[in-house]
Amino acid sequence: MSIEKLREYISSIKETDQEAAVKARTRLDSLAKPPGSLGKLEDIAEKLSAISGEMYYDTKKRCVIVMSSDNGVIEEGVSVTPQSVTLAQTINFVRGLTGVAVIAKQFNTDLIVVDVGINADVDYPGIIDKKIRKSTWNIAKQEAMTYDEAVQAILIGIETAVQAVNDGYTLLGAGEMGVANTTTSAAVLCALTGLPSVQVAGKGAGLLEDAYQHKIKVIQKAVDSNKPNPDDPIDVLAKVGGFDLAAMTGVYLGGAYMRVPVVIDGFISMVAALAAARISPTAKEYMFASHESFEQGFVHASQALGLDTCLKMNMRLGEGSGCPIMFAIMDAACGMMRDMATFEEAEIDDIYLEDLRKGDDYFTVKKD
Amino acid sequence: MSIEKLREYISSIKETDQEAAVKARTRLDSLAKPPGSLGKLEDIAEKLSAISGEMYYDTKKRCVIVMSSDNGVIEEGVSVTPQSVTLAQTINFVRGLTGVAVIAKQFNTDLIVVDVGINADVDYPGIIDKKIRKSTWNIAKQEAMTYDEAVQAILIGIETAVQAVNDGYTLLGAGEMGVANTTTSAAVLCALTGLPSVQVAGKGAGLLEDAYQHKIKVIQKAVDSNKPNPDDPIDVLAKVGGFDLAAMTGVYLGGAYMRVPVVIDGFISMVAALAAARISPTAKEYMFASHESFEQGFVHASQALGLDTCLKMNMRLGEGSGCPIMFAIMDAACGMMRDMATFEEAEIDDIYLEDLRKGDDYFTVKKD
Repeated sequence: MSIEKLREYISSIKETDQEAAVKARTRLDSLAKPPGSLGKLEDIAEKLSAISGEMYYDTKKRCVIVMSSDNGVIEEGVSVTPQSVTLAQTINFVRGLTGVAVIAKQFNTDLIVVDVGINADVDYPGIIDKKIRKSTWNIAKQEAMTYDEAVQAILIGIETAVQAVNDGYTLLGAGEMGVANTTTSAAVLCALTGLPSVQVAGKGAGLLEDAYQHKIKVIQKAVDSNKPNPDDPIDVLAKVGGFDLAAMTGVYLGGAYMRVPVVIDGFISMVAALAAARISPTAKEYMFASHESFEQGFVHASQALGLDTCLKMNMRLGEGSGCPIMFAIMDAACGMMRDMATFEEAEIDDIYLEDLRKGDDYFTVKKD
Repeated sequence: MSIEKLREYISSIKETDQEAAVKARTRLDSLAKPPGSLGKLEDIAEKLSAISGEMYYDTKKRCVIVMSSDNGVIEEGVSVTPQSVTLAQTINFVRGLTGVAVIAKQFNTDLIVVDVGINADVDYPGIIDKKIRKSTWNIAKQEAMTYDEAVQAILIGIETAVQAVNDGYTLLGAGEMGVANTTTSAAVLCALTGLPSVQVAGKGAGLLEDAYQHKIKVIQKAVDSNKPNPDDPIDVLAKVGGFDLAAMTGVYLGGAYMRVPVVIDGFISMVAALAAARISPTAKEYMFASHESFEQGFVHASQALGLDTCLKMNMRLGEGSGCPIMFAIMDAACGMMRDMATFEEAEIDDIYLEDLRKGDDYFTVKKD
C-alpha cells in the first residue's frame, strides 16, 4: 500500500524545464558583465529557472525541515554525545536556541521540526509528531528498521515537503538531529558506493582516536552483516540507515515532486540526498549543495552525487545549519537575475561618454 | 607633508584585542555544539571580538567602497573592454544596476562610489569626486604615477574609510572599477612576491589566447622596466599599480585605523589587501577574505597574504561583488554568538528527559 504510494510520488517527479534554462542563460549572458563572470550565482539562477520554468524565482519564504530521531547503534559507544541530546536539541530547535535556529533567524528562515523516532514520548508545542517508533534498532546487531518502516519514513519526508510547499514555501532545506547518525550515514554511504568504512567514517561530534577506530569497525560490521542491496536504496536505508536519514531522503523527493529547490546541508544531509538521487535520478536536478562539511565522508558523498558546493566553512554541526547561508547566496542569484542591467540598459547616453568617444586624446594619457 | 600624514595613520593602527578574543573563544566553546563544529563562523566571531574588544558585534550598517579609475596600460591592448566602461559602470553603480549594486541591495549594503582617476570629467550625483588626475600612465612605458600621487591615493582610501566609520558604518568592503586593472594588479603582485607574470596573469574579462600571451608579456615588461622596490609597497603601487588599487589599499588601512573589519573581494581587492598588509602587517588582523576568485592570480595573492576564503563561487566580476555575500556570512557568525544557547541554557529540565534518564530500557531498543 504505502510502497505503491511512494512509487506514485517517484514516478511523478518531472524533469526540469530545459527550455526555461536556455532562456535564463540567454538573459544571464545579456547582463552587463563578462559572460560567466558571476560564476555559480549564474548557475544557481539558471537552475532555478529550470526548476520553476520561470525567468525569476522568489526565495523569500523558505524553511529548513529538521528530522529528529534516535539511532539504536548508539549502544555500541559510537558517539560522545548522550542520547538525551536528541530530544533536548529538538526542543531547542523550537525554542530558537540551536545552531540552525539562530542561523535560520538571521536569514528569515522558518524551521519545521519533525519527530520521526525520538526515543521518548514527545508532546511539545511546535514539534510535529510523526514518530514511527522510539529509535531504530542497533545496526551492528540487526537491521535498523523493516523495509515497510523505511518506506513510511520516506513518505513522511515527502509529505512534509509537500505540505510545506502547499503552505507557500518555495525553498526548502533538509536538516537533522539524531545522536549517532554520522555512524548510520557512513554505513549508508558505504553501502551505496562500495567504499570501505575507513574512508567515510568521521569523528562526528568529537571522538577520540580509540573510539574512532571502534566506530570504523562498527560501521563495517553493520554493512557486512546486514548485507544491504546497493541497487535498492530503500533496502540500504532500512538495513543500515535511520528514520532521520530516510525521512530526509523523502524531503528531497518531495521537493522534486513539488518542483521546488531543496538545499543540502552537511554529511548526513548529503548522504540522504545521494539516497534520494539513487531512488530518483531526476530529483538531483532540484538539489543544491551548500557547504563542504568538515566530516571526512562528505567529499565522497558529494562526489558520488556529483554536486558542487559554494561554501567552505569547516562546519560539521549538522542540524541543517548550512542551509540558511546557502539561501542567502540564492537570494543574491535571484537579485542578480531580476535587477541587474543588460548591456543595453547599462549603456550610458551621457555627455561624458559622448565627450570621451569624441576625444582625440582618448588613449593618449601622457605625463605632462 | 602627505607622506607624514600617511605615516601617522599607519603608526596609529593598533593590534587587535587578544584578551577579548580569548573571552570570545570561551563563550564559543560554551555554546551547545561540539567545540569548533561551526568552523569559520566561530573564527569570524572571535576575530570580530578581537577587532572590537567586545563580545558581540553589530554588522547591520555596512557598505562597499568602490574605487573607480582608469589605467593607462589599456593602450597596450590588454583588455577586451573599452575604457568608456569604467565611467559607464561607475554611473551604473549609483543607478543600482551593476553586479555589486544588485548583490549589495540583497544584503542591505550601501555603496560608496569614489572617482579617483576616471579618464573623463565626471560630475554625477552620488559619485564622490576625489580624482587625482585622468587615468594613470601606461606602465609598459613608464611608472603609473608619481610616489606622491600614490601616497595621495592611499590617503583618499584611508579618509573614505574613516568618513564611513564616522557615518556609522561598522563593516566595510573594498571594490573597484577600472578597465585594465587585472593587468596592474598582476604587476603589483609580481613585484610584491617575485612571482613571474605567467603565474599571476589571468584572462580578465575574457581575453583570447593570443591577447592573453601578450598581456603576460606586458606585465613582465612593466615590472622589469619600472623596477619597483618590493620592500616599499608604495613604490610598487606608484610604479606598476593604479589609483584604484592604491585607494583600495588605503581602505584596508583606514578600516584598521578605525578598528573596523574590512572585507576583501576578488583578485584586485586581494592584491590591494596584500599591499596594505605589507605597509602595515597589523592591518591584516582587520581583514576578512570572502571568495576564491576564478582569476588565476587570486590564489597566489591570498596565499601571500595568508587569509583563507569562505566562498568558492567561481566569480571573477570584481566591483566588490563578493563582499555583500561575505557580510551575510558575518551576520550568521554574529547571530550565533549572540543568540545561540550555552550548554547550560540548552539543558532541558523536562519531564520527557527525566523519564528518559530514569528509564531502565534506555539503551535497550529491541525488535519485538
